[in-house]
Amino acid sequence: MMTNAQGRDAGERVGFVGLGVMGAPMAQNLVTAGFDVTVWNRTAARMAAVVDHGARAAGSLGELARRCDVVVLCVSDSPDVESVLFADDGLAAGLARGSLVVDCSTISPERTREFADRLDSRGVGWVDAPVSGGSEGASRATLSIMVGGSDRDVARAEPMLRAMGSTVTHLGPVGSGQWAKVLNQVILAGVYLAVAEGVTLGMKAGIDVAGSLEALRAGAAGSWVLSNRSQRMIDNEYPLGFKLRLHRKDLAIALELARAVGAALPVSSLAATLEDGLIGEGYGDEDNAALARAVRRLAGL
Amino acid sequence: MMTNAQGRDAGERVGFVGLGVMGAPMAQNLVTAGFDVTVWNRTAARMAAVVDHGARAAGSLGELARRCDVVVLCVSDSPDVESVLFADDGLAAGLARGSLVVDCSTISPERTREFADRLDSRGVGWVDAPVSGGSEGASRATLSIMVGGSDRDVARAEPMLRAMGSTVTHLGPVGSGQWAKVLNQVILAGVYLAVAEGVTLGMKAGIDVAGSLEALRAGAAGSWVLSNRSQRMIDNEYPLGFKLRLHRKDLAIALELARAVGAALPVSSLAATLEDGLIGEGYGDEDNAALARAVRRLAGL
Repeated sequence: MMTNAQGRDAGERVGFVGLGVMGAPMAQNLVTAGFDVTVWNRTAARMAAVVDHGARAAGSLGELARRCDVVVLCVSDSPDVESVLFADDGLAAGLARGSLVVDCSTISPERTREFADRLDSRGVGWVDAPVSGGSEGASRATLSIMVGGSDRDVARAEPMLRAMGSTVTHLGPVGSGQWAKVLNQVILAGVYLAVAEGVTLGMKAGIDVAGSLEALRAGAAGSWVLSNRSQRMIDNEYPLGFKLRLHRKDLAIALELARAVGAALPVSSLAATLEDGLIGEGYGDEDNAALARAVRRLAGL
Repeated sequence: MMTNAQGRDAGERVGFVGLGVMGAPMAQNLVTAGFDVTVWNRTAARMAAVVDHGARAAGSLGELARRCDVVVLCVSDSPDVESVLFADDGLAAGLARGSLVVDCSTISPERTREFADRLDSRGVGWVDAPVSGGSEGASRATLSIMVGGSDRDVARAEPMLRAMGSTVTHLGPVGSGQWAKVLNQVILAGVYLAVAEGVTLGMKAGIDVAGSLEALRAGAAGSWVLSNRSQRMIDNEYPLGFKLRLHRKDLAIALELARAVGAALPVSSLAATLEDGLIGEGYGDEDNAALARAVRRLAGL
């Protein structure tokens, strides 16, 4: 097997918890990079593909914790992280002093600091490392990873992060990575609505929307969403990508923080409301660009 | 004088009306490219710099019209275009059959078709060619130009357009260029608000906003505004650029069209309202990114 020198040199035994659309390819990329990887997933059947790729399956979170030096988490939300860490036979009870948790989930920066403090009292380190780049980025190891933690812990996590992503940015202490992800999701909400309004107006007017938007890509109105998602909005078809319901979850974190610090975010709030309606109608598992459905509907499209 | 073969081959005598922040460097670039350029401006003093560069000054619009085969307009709004064309001693009365008007102003697509029809009845052609790229793009001849008109008229205008811009896209018949610009301004409104919300939330939370946004540039939340205008929002200083009051004028066109075709644009409407407040407070001559002032204020920043 081809191995990555970093994995061998570090000699870290790596655990991976959460083999969803993002986590499964991320864990596989750790195996490919030469790390000794043990996985656990709530739905056990999802472990098979990664085990075929060369990982070991743990029978429980406690077993995984006792077997690993560094544990990467990639689950859905703050309560999932809390449960994986602190439930009976969770990770915390099994992790040795000097071990490290690397949380690639997108959760609240405030809960992040709380979890990190609880682990710190047990001698276990913490790095928050939420990712962006979607399922494509996870498969191709081209994720952008926003990192918070102490210099020492981040340096330790870095070989693993570089096996999963192409851009790894250390932004500050614990919670800093999650904060950057919060800003990412706030900005993304507005850009989706912006492009959706342009698409909708153009379609109602009967002009050549795709051609017009193509002419705008290189200019001041240009964005990743315009370049990569406007055609889906024109077609009104939204293959994944990144699920709308997960963006709504992230907006909930952002809007709670906004209330806490005293910031009104009118566009993000509108996006959250429109996403609630779409999720209620059954569109939550579509790509985030399906937010355009709401703007199109306002125009009767 | 260095000349551009296109200017000489075509042998076109080019008029230029409207020597503002955009028009003056655009007219200079036509001179630089070798065209025989005659200029006119309502405020006559503004003609001096372009005349020093090699253009001739006309004493009136009628004189300019009689002296030129192609006339480029770069004025502020639909009434300005109407006045320049159809007022007493305006262009229309002086233009010979077979001449061409190239309108680089940003005006309504509907008024555009009306003006083009009136000129067509006099045997004068029309190309709408609104630009984006700001004063920097005008100076460096790197504007993106969105073009509407017949194939024949656009082909005739193209050497002049290529002397002023680096991207020239022919989108369809008369009005198509203005329609693309409408979509540009709608999308831009939402992207400005999106980035402003991210900046504002981060600043209220006391995190490293510039560092966090730097980490997001290459990802799904990336945009021209994020890369080029977020630092101004953090600094709360808004040098030009592109004037806020002109974006508001363009949003008025967009929102009137939206009503006409039956499209609700909630984010663009919010941007228009916030821009009205800022213009009333005296910020209309700042760069468009000053829209962030309104979001910052909602958070008490």
